[in-house]
Amino acid sequence: MAKIKQVAITGGTHGNELTGVHLLKHWRSDPTEVARSSFKTELHLANPKANACNRRYVDQDLNRQFNVEDLNNHELCGYEHNRAKSLNSLLGPKEDPRVDFIIDLHTTTANMGMSLIFNTDDPFVVGMAFYVQQKMPHATLFFDPIERMKDSFLTSMGRHNGFLIEAGAVPQGLLRADIYLETKEAVEHCLDYIEAFNTGTVPELPETREVYQFGDKVKLPENEQGELTAMVHPKLQDQDYQPIKTGDPLFLTLAGETLPYEGEETVYGAFINEAAYYDAHVGLSFMTKTQISLKR
Amino acid sequence: MAKIKQVAITGGTHGNELTGVHLLKHWRSDPTEVARSSFKTELHLANPKANACNRRYVDQDLNRQFNVEDLNNHELCGYEHNRAKSLNSLLGPKEDPRVDFIIDLHTTTANMGMSLIFNTDDPFVVGMAFYVQQKMPHATLFFDPIERMKDSFLTSMGRHNGFLIEAGAVPQGLLRADIYLETKEAVEHCLDYIEAFNTGTVPELPETREVYQFGDKVKLPENEQGELTAMVHPKLQDQDYQPIKTGDPLFLTLAGETLPYEGEETVYGAFINEAAYYDAHVGLSFMTKTQISLKR
Repeated sequence: MAKIKQVAITGGTHGNELTGVHLLKHWRSDPTEVARSSFKTELHLANPKANACNRRYVDQDLNRQFNVEDLNNHELCGYEHNRAKSLNSLLGPKEDPRVDFIIDLHTTTANMGMSLIFNTDDPFVVGMAFYVQQKMPHATLFFDPIERMKDSFLTSMGRHNGFLIEAGAVPQGLLRADIYLETKEAVEHCLDYIEAFNTGTVPELPETREVYQFGDKVKLPENEQGELTAMVHPKLQDQDYQPIKTGDPLFLTLAGETLPYEGEETVYGAFINEAAYYDAHVGLSFMTKTQISLKR
Repeated sequence: MAKIKQVAITGGTHGNELTGVHLLKHWRSDPTEVARSSFKTELHLANPKANACNRRYVDQDLNRQFNVEDLNNHELCGYEHNRAKSLNSLLGPKEDPRVDFIIDLHTTTANMGMSLIFNTDDPFVVGMAFYVQQKMPHATLFFDPIERMKDSFLTSMGRHNGFLIEAGAVPQGLLRADIYLETKEAVEHCLDYIEAFNTGTVPELPETREVYQFGDKVKLPENEQGELTAMVHPKLQDQDYQPIKTGDPLFLTLAGETLPYEGEETVYGAFINEAAYYDAHVGLSFMTKTQISLKR
């Protein structure tokens, strides 16, 4: 595989996730921390307007605008539709990108710890996930495979489908130092891995690792008027990546009644009580636990 | 003292603090839970427009608009300035209010647990704080005395300066069932206390209790451009109501340097890393620990 020449670190793709925004500010003042000898690193605040408003987005979620069809559809002209096209010209074009790899920094209000989200089984990317997890054994691998051209995430704008670092729990609109430091460390490991890849010095990595694969979004219960009637159950709150079995408590109604999980298959929760999904009344995502191999 | 005849429970005074909003919805569907025999309870969503936008406020913080001078100043005509005047005609007028007592429901992103905030040493109000704490011993008393006419909180719109229930930690824009249930319980104790007060059956209460008294807001460090250069130190994060002594870590710069507390007096932190104060770069409040007596 060709060497990686151009890496972009992006943050503030969601304007109220401040960790990435402030890491970019810090690295701009001290670029040596993200510099490596075998490639160039560039830093981009992805949605400055949403960040200035302390909102996730102005018109649309920016991190759903990067599939190639939408990028080439000039009927779509909301703020983030245009911003995606502008990032397409800065980093892309998607069909033949200037940038080789993108590391995009996110946070969540869910208790997901250090989650490494990647959308491809490309051995360069899987190797990065395994490498970072070797350095940060508490990190969780979150796999959501999709063909790069159809992928709507900003991370899909690189030549290799990239890497999304999702750290939590942290409320929107503030910094938590622990989350800031963990994210900083994860990025440094990513850059070290790319350097090792380019120089043929990647250490021995496992053959397979456990991953959580994205399944379904689960809606919070609503009444006929579309109003919320229940919330995430206290026993499920903060239990991201833990098993949910038939009969386990899922929701608690506003009146105090427990609603159990009625599925037969054991699933695993993620994005449990993520504030950003509240407008759509999504309470959590069901994941399946599986294995991923590092293809040689 | 005259009996309490009319009690208002208010929520959504800050539009993205959803616990109160959904408790009001629940009680509207089951009013018996907040009904007592000796007084009437009314329920008001204080800032419906901010709630619909999932924002703290539209133009101004509503919970700073209720001092009598501002209520009577018709030059002030932002959304919340007008909303405060409208609530003044619904609950007040401030100078001679229709409503006897207001319980206002708030949440915080700080780890303040169940905090009972009151602004007067009126024995009816102090008695309520002592009563609720007797039922919920983990609750903290937060005292911020100010004369009712000058008080800018919604709770000051009642004949007796009222009671603010502040529960956390919970991010903005979502419900946590544990916080919802705790807030519900605290309100029920408040109503039981009023009923006992009216019927002369208040149980024996302590003579004095520990309170945290509001002191100074402490700003996060900024550079010359007014940009944030540091965040709450990991050792201070979540340590609300714990002592801060000379030399204790206060902030961590984006570059990783620890900035200590340089004051000589031991203080106590509150609203540590409250998202709502981030726009003003306020990192926490310093409190002093003192005693309050229940005047007989």
